[in-house]
Amino acid sequence: MRVVSGMRPTGKLHLGHYIGVIKNWKNLQDNYQCMFFVADWHALSTKYDEGLNLKELSIELIKEWIACGIDPQKATLFIQSAIKEHAELYLIFNMITPISWLERNPTYKDAMNQPEYKKKNNAGFLTYPVLQTADIVIYDADLVPIGEDQKPHLELAREIVRHFHYIYKMEIFKEPKEILTEVARLPGLDGRKMSKSYNNAIYLDETSDEIWQKVRMAKTDPARIKKTDPGHPEVCIVFDYHKAFSSEEEVKEIEEACKNGTIGCVECKKRCAKNIEKIIAPIRDKKASLQNDEILDIIKEGNKKAKSLAEKKMKEVNKVIF
Amino acid sequence: MRVVSGMRPTGKLHLGHYIGVIKNWKNLQDNYQCMFFVADWHALSTKYDEGLNLKELSIELIKEWIACGIDPQKATLFIQSAIKEHAELYLIFNMITPISWLERNPTYKDAMNQPEYKKKNNAGFLTYPVLQTADIVIYDADLVPIGEDQKPHLELAREIVRHFHYIYKMEIFKEPKEILTEVARLPGLDGRKMSKSYNNAIYLDETSDEIWQKVRMAKTDPARIKKTDPGHPEVCIVFDYHKAFSSEEEVKEIEEACKNGTIGCVECKKRCAKNIEKIIAPIRDKKASLQNDEILDIIKEGNKKAKSLAEKKMKEVNKVIF
Repeated sequence: MRVVSGMRPTGKLHLGHYIGVIKNWKNLQDNYQCMFFVADWHALSTKYDEGLNLKELSIELIKEWIACGIDPQKATLFIQSAIKEHAELYLIFNMITPISWLERNPTYKDAMNQPEYKKKNNAGFLTYPVLQTADIVIYDADLVPIGEDQKPHLELAREIVRHFHYIYKMEIFKEPKEILTEVARLPGLDGRKMSKSYNNAIYLDETSDEIWQKVRMAKTDPARIKKTDPGHPEVCIVFDYHKAFSSEEEVKEIEEACKNGTIGCVECKKRCAKNIEKIIAPIRDKKASLQNDEILDIIKEGNKKAKSLAEKKMKEVNKVIF
Repeated sequence: MRVVSGMRPTGKLHLGHYIGVIKNWKNLQDNYQCMFFVADWHALSTKYDEGLNLKELSIELIKEWIACGIDPQKATLFIQSAIKEHAELYLIFNMITPISWLERNPTYKDAMNQPEYKKKNNAGFLTYPVLQTADIVIYDADLVPIGEDQKPHLELAREIVRHFHYIYKMEIFKEPKEILTEVARLPGLDGRKMSKSYNNAIYLDETSDEIWQKVRMAKTDPARIKKTDPGHPEVCIVFDYHKAFSSEEEVKEIEEACKNGTIGCVECKKRCAKNIEKIIAPIRDKKASLQNDEILDIIKEGNKKAKSLAEKKMKEVNKVIF
C-alpha cells in the first residue's frame, strides 16, 4: 500500500507540525510505502509574492524531517517541482475539471471571504486541488493522511479520477482513500493556532533556554493568582503541552496538584519545558549534525525514484488521451 | 526575430486554413525564425471527450503543413505535448494570473453564452490563454501572427509577463508583439464559415473530381436563374473563390461576364474548380509522397530544438521563483 503526502516549504517546523504531521508520518513509514514531498509549487499558490527562498526552505524542510526521524531508507523524499509530470497531469486534469467543482471547495470559499486571500484570487489558487489530485494519483497512492478539513479535497480527487475514467473509458488511476489522522492540534503559547505569524510557536531547533523562555510566557488559567488557588488545567495551555509531551503519570500528577493548589505555575512550566526539551534535544542535535550535501544526495535519490514512477504513469495517461 | 504560432490538430486542413493561416506561415518562414507547433493540449480544452486520435491527427497535420510548403529546414515544427516545460510554465503563470483577467476574455464570455461550451466550463477552458502565454513566451517569441479576434489573448500574454516581472523584479521574458494578418477568410460552399461540422469545406487532399463535385454545389447569386440574367458577383460564393484562387485578370473577366450575363454559372464554376485544382494538386501529390517515418523524423528533430530552448528558459524561470 502506498501513502503520498506533502508539506509546503514556508518556514521552520514547530512543535505543532511535529505533533500534527511528523509523528504521524513516522508511524506511516513503518507500515506503508511512503512518498513524502516538499510542495514547493503549492507554496506559490498563496505565497508567490513573499520573496521566500523556496529552494533553501525546501532543503531545510527535508533536513528537519530527517532530524525528526523520517527515514529516507524507508520513505521516498522528494521535491514536487523536480517532477515536471505533476504539472503535466495538472494541465490534463484542468481540461476535464468543471470550475463549479473548484468553486464549491470550502477552503476556497472561506478564503474568498478574507480580504488578504480575495486579492490573490488567481487561477492557481482556484485550481490547487487539481494539482493536489495530480500529486497523489500520479503515484497510484492508496492512502493519503489528512485532517477532517481536507476531506473535500480528497473527495474532489476521487471525482476527477472517476470523471477521467468515464471520459476515456479506461481505469488507469487509483481512487485514493483517506487515513483520517486524529486531529492532534497543539495550540500556540497564547492559545491561538500555533503559527509563525502569531509569534507563538516553539521551533524544533530551539535551545533549552529558548524553550524555557517561551514556556515561561505561556498562557495559564487566568483565575489562578496564588499557588494555593485551585487551578483549572482544562483551560491551561501549559496543561495542553503536558498532555502532548509528558508521560501519562506525570500528566495525572500535574492535574491533581494543579486542582489542589499544591504545585505552582512556575514549577509546572519548568517540568513542561524539561519534557519539551527531551523531545527537541535529539531533533536539534540531529539537525545540527546533518550536512547539506547529505540532504542534497537524499533529495537526488528521492527525485529519481519519484520521477521514474511519474514518467511511467504519464506514459499510460498520454496513451489514453492522445 | 522569432515567430511562434500553433494550430490545433482537430482534423484535415481545408482551403480555409490554407488561405487563412498556411499561406501566411509560408511568408513568415522566409523572413523570420519560425516555430510552428501542433497544439494538441489545446485541442483537449474543448474536445477532450470527442475520442479524437490526437496522436495520428498531429502527425497528419504536420504532414499537411509540409505538403503545403512549410519547410522544416526553415521552420522548427514540433508537438506541444512533447515539451513538458509548457505545462510547467502554465502552472507557474496560473499562480499569478487573476481569475478576473481570464473571465474578461471575450472568447470565454462568448462561449459561456453557448450551451455546448457552457457545459464544458472547465478549469482548462478558462485558463487556455495562460497556456497560450506559456507556449509563446517560453521561446522568447518576438512576434505572433494573429487575427483581430485574438488580440485580447496576446494582450493578456503581455499582462502576465509584466505581472511576473513586477512580482519577481526580474525581466526574463519578452513581451510578444502581434503581426496582424489580413483576415483572409474563405467562406464555406454554403456561405457559412468553412468548417468540418457544416460539411461545406474543400480539403487539401481532395481529387480533381471531388473538388468539382463540391464547387458544382456551391451557392451562387440566387437572383440569377438563366445565363442571360445579369449576375451579382458580390453575393456569389463562387466569386469569393475566384478572388482567392484565380488570377487577377481572370477575376476581372469573370466579374464582367457575370454582370453582363455572358457566362453561365456552370462554366464559371468549372473555371473556378480548375484553379482550385491548380493549388491543391501539388499539395495532394506532395502529401501522398510523404512517408510517416519522414514526418516522425522531422518531428523528432523539431521537438529536440524546441525542448532545448524551453529547458533553458525554464532554468531561468525557476532560478527566479525558487
